[in-house]
Amino acid sequence: MNGLMMNTSLTVTSIMQHAERVNGGGEIVSVTKDNPRHRYTYREAFARVRQLANAMAGWNLQRGDRIATLAWNDYRHFETYYAASCSGYVCHTINPRLFPEQLVYIINHAEDQYVFFDPDFMPLVAAIADQCPGVKGWVALTNAEHMPTGEVDNLLCYEDVLAGQGSAYDWPELDENEACALCYTSGTTGNPKGVLYSHRSTLLHAYASMMPDALGLSRKDVVLPIVPMFHVNAWGIPYTCPMAGAKMVFPGAKVGDGATLAALINEEGVTQSAGVPTVWLALLAYLKKSGETVASLQQIVVGGAACPLSIMEDFEKYGVESRVGWGMTEMSPLGSINASTDSRDQYSEKAFAKLRLKAGRPVFGVEMKIVDEQGEELPWDGVAYGSLMVRGPWICSSYYKLEGSSAHSDGWFETGDVATIDPDGYMAITDRTKDVIKSGGEWISSIEVENVATDHPKVAEAAVIGHYHPKWSERPLLIVVKAPGGEDLTEAEILAWFDGKIAKWWTPDAVQFVDSLPHGATGKIQKVELRKQFEDYQFPEG
Amino acid sequence: MNGLMMNTSLTVTSIMQHAERVNGGGEIVSVTKDNPRHRYTYREAFARVRQLANAMAGWNLQRGDRIATLAWNDYRHFETYYAASCSGYVCHTINPRLFPEQLVYIINHAEDQYVFFDPDFMPLVAAIADQCPGVKGWVALTNAEHMPTGEVDNLLCYEDVLAGQGSAYDWPELDENEACALCYTSGTTGNPKGVLYSHRSTLLHAYASMMPDALGLSRKDVVLPIVPMFHVNAWGIPYTCPMAGAKMVFPGAKVGDGATLAALINEEGVTQSAGVPTVWLALLAYLKKSGETVASLQQIVVGGAACPLSIMEDFEKYGVESRVGWGMTEMSPLGSINASTDSRDQYSEKAFAKLRLKAGRPVFGVEMKIVDEQGEELPWDGVAYGSLMVRGPWICSSYYKLEGSSAHSDGWFETGDVATIDPDGYMAITDRTKDVIKSGGEWISSIEVENVATDHPKVAEAAVIGHYHPKWSERPLLIVVKAPGGEDLTEAEILAWFDGKIAKWWTPDAVQFVDSLPHGATGKIQKVELRKQFEDYQFPEG
Ligand SMILES: Nc1ncnc2c1ncn2[C@@H]1O[C@H](COP(=O)(O)OP(=O)(O)OP(=O)(O)O)[C@@H](O)[C@H]1O
Ligand SMILES: Nc1ncnc2c1ncn2[C@@H]1O[C@H](COP(=O)(O)OP(=O)(O)OP(=O)(O)O)[C@@H](O)[C@H]1O
Ligand SMILES: [Mg+2]
Ligand SMILES: [Mg+2]
Repeated sequence: MNGLMMNTSLTVTSIMQHAERVNGGGEIVSVTKDNPRHRYTYREAFARVRQLANAMAGWNLQRGDRIATLAWNDYRHFETYYAASCSGYVCHTINPRLFPEQLVYIINHAEDQYVFFDPDFMPLVAAIADQCPGVKGWVALTNAEHMPTGEVDNLLCYEDVLAGQGSAYDWPELDENEACALCYTSGTTGNPKGVLYSHRSTLLHAYASMMPDALGLSRKDVVLPIVPMFHVNAWGIPYTCPMAGAKMVFPGAKVGDGATLAALINEEGVTQSAGVPTVWLALLAYLKKSGETVASLQQIVVGGAACPLSIMEDFEKYGVESRVGWGMTEMSPLGSINASTDSRDQYSEKAFAKLRLKAGRPVFGVEMKIVDEQGEELPWDGVAYGSLMVRGPWICSSYYKLEGSSAHSDGWFETGDVATIDPDGYMAITDRTKDVIKSGGEWISSIEVENVATDHPKVAEAAVIGHYHPKWSERPLLIVVKAPGGEDLTEAEILAWFDGKIAKWWTPDAVQFVDSLPHGATGKIQKVELRKQFEDYQFPEG
Repeated sequence: MNGLMMNTSLTVTSIMQHAERVNGGGEIVSVTKDNPRHRYTYREAFARVRQLANAMAGWNLQRGDRIATLAWNDYRHFETYYAASCSGYVCHTINPRLFPEQLVYIINHAEDQYVFFDPDFMPLVAAIADQCPGVKGWVALTNAEHMPTGEVDNLLCYEDVLAGQGSAYDWPELDENEACALCYTSGTTGNPKGVLYSHRSTLLHAYASMMPDALGLSRKDVVLPIVPMFHVNAWGIPYTCPMAGAKMVFPGAKVGDGATLAALINEEGVTQSAGVPTVWLALLAYLKKSGETVASLQQIVVGGAACPLSIMEDFEKYGVESRVGWGMTEMSPLGSINASTDSRDQYSEKAFAKLRLKAGRPVFGVEMKIVDEQGEELPWDGVAYGSLMVRGPWICSSYYKLEGSSAHSDGWFETGDVATIDPDGYMAITDRTKDVIKSGGEWISSIEVENVATDHPKVAEAAVIGHYHPKWSERPLLIVVKAPGGEDLTEAEILAWFDGKIAKWWTPDAVQFVDSLPHGATGKIQKVELRKQFEDYQFPEG
């Protein structure tokens, strides 16, 4: 017997309509190339979204067609999100930091019909447009005055596209299972793979991340999404902010610029922000240098990669709580979040430091388990580690145009991460399956080793890889980029630093200093590259 | 084109499974007749839920069958919720304060197979059991030692039912649209009508009420649901607490007892609570008398009926923020909530007092509109008032076994409430459609008039009804119960009190003093009764 409840569809359209009616006065502030501080309201934003939808309606598109973006976080990108998804098309966000070959591959693989791009990327577009014959229009996200020039057919100006379009539009009724967005994985471990989100999954993910122990946005918040909108929809913030009626502050291209970030935080009264560890390092470095503070900022979410303890400790000095989040493109992205700061008083200083580094507890809606090599489930004892499997309504069931994914078994998705889970449900990523270091049959967590190394004041960046060893089959090799001012760092000094911080046998056998590490499009260290680079290295005899 | 996301069902089972794995150590404390302070963990609770499910599996029930409860808020009631719903049956919560005829009507109308009842209600059960021939078993929620005696066939003891049952159980895979719970409306304006919730609607309602601007529970919260579990599932708290991992404190039969409530709050560290205005009056009266405080309590939600300003002001003195919520049985129940205290500094003292009395802003997921008598939509200007219509995934589409409800038109549900909505989305209930007072063609809000009257220190309770007037067709008649110590209150004194507080022409034409007002099963004033009572009254000439 079914319940007798309305079968209203869970759609992104409903977020837009709620925000316009109930949070119409909420503000959106953006840094763009043509305006250092553009500001308007949700009401104005969604009127323009309807103008864009009217323009798109004239483009002869089919329901489900892909409309791509290659853009920074700003209001025009936000408008494109809603116009595309709510019209029944798929908003395909592309990472502009990918190599041109990858961009071409992704645009053609997704069969993008239109590409909306930031004028910054005009040279990139000019370089690839010829190789993307399916694209019917390249729309520069700017006004006529600031149009970039480039040898591209079908070049359009965003503000011209909107001009003259009416701001009334009859949104189609959408089924909640229809696709609304598409994002390719970062390509850290292989080729980027497309994840096709539905309206339903996007909405449920937004609800879940609104919980107080997750992101927990309220109408009084002012949110600065530093995480790019091309990186798993900026972790859902373009959906949760309108839902809550929170003010949004878009940093545009200035995501790595500590001075601009500090100015945005202080001038706009930002209370919450989200980004990968690297941007926080940039902001902290600027604050230290300038002596400025970030008084309004209450909480940041740090995700996408393991967060060094020093970031959390430094932010604490500024009165900011950090929450580590773990997620994947395949998970929309939120999987777990660490809100342990809320119960800090229940732990010793040392236990708390250990706890807060973990990837956190599964968000309600995400089921987790860890399994051994035979697929047997492992206990949640905080010690046993195994392949992390997940299941839930905002987790992909297969990749776009790659049916029959090997990452799925029995309804579970294999994350490719290795983790422990403790009895309280705190999950800790110890490695990627592909990066695991196996020394004499025992696993070493490269993430834990890297965390300790990175906390050394003379270390800017560090990576550990498993490297061939005649006796142990593999031993950890530490690769370090020295911090400015830390040029005198020696191998002995850094190896001594590990004493008492990790198990003796986890300590790397040797250290190699380099000028820089290879990074992928989302800034993650590419260990495949690194392993290639040190292929011929040999551990000193000893 | 559909998204490529897992199609995991949204079920109450998933809440249970999440809570057990991730929040297993969370505490549930209950006041019961056989134990003044029973305590155990979610882990222990759900092991017992599986024992109960095993017992139910032997009862020869069909999927979708109704299992009723007639019980206070305690752990055994909580266990029954989950065992019934997750087994694929429907948990039908019944209000024990209904008249016996109504109970019989509801049990037979719902075709309840088993009824789980609190030993307190043994006399009631003994009085009605004969008239409910379909009930196969009456289960007293207690242990053998405390079994009540009564002339009832098929009397069972809860702990005996569980005893010997295994705590392993293979939960069925449920479709999210299957029914999980049933609750009849309060019967304030007519006969109680059954609302049949689905797993999906219950889960979505829980997600929505977890938002920080709604109830916003976190793992560190300790929640005291004073609102009964037979009153629209205690506003969802038995679902949201396990979701969040919050500690739950169940007051048992002691819902109207200020001393017990204060003790529970202080001894268990309660941070959040929820209930109708009457219980808050009881708690406040106790605090005033005893001089005790409620230091841990941070926030209460007041709903089910309009909340007098004095309750909010009094709680503020104890450091407690109040949020007014509006809802209906038909809405699971949450429709809107007033979190205006968060932005208090943006208003003058006077504007803020007005604002916080409103029913609040629609929760994301609930769409609202107000329409005039012709069904034309009215503006959100805070002035125009009309019939309030709602739509959303946790709103009923029709009543149980009453297909073709006249309360639905064009996909919207007509709430039977009259409201204004301001440009910020703050909705204010001015009346029930059936209680509207129409004076010379203009509407008077009985709720606003009652709010002012109730704030008079010598008034315990007040109601306003429209009464026949030869010139204006209807004029407001105020009916007052004097507060203890306020026996000298006169008509002139109370009428003067309205001066400057509401429009002159809204002031009642006359006052009648009574010893008590007629209340329904949820404690609401029954205006139908009241109008009958004063049918023959005549306004004085003048
Ligand atoms: N808090 C965290 N701690 C450690 N690792 C994290 C954290 N958050 C995310 N990650 C890592 O990032 C991965 C998800 O990243 P993303 O979806 O952007 O693509 P990718 O896995 O880097 O690229 P690809 O799948 O194409 O190789 C996770 O599987 C995990 O390895
Ligand atoms: N915050 C509030 N302010 C004013 N009225 C409220 C508030 N919350 C709830 N109500 C009233 O309670 C009603 C919902 O109550 P409920 O579903 O318990 O049954 P009922 O309407 O009292 O009974 P019945 O529908 O059987 O006549 C709303 O329609 C509204 O009139
Ligand atoms: Mg990956
Ligand atoms: Mg009603």
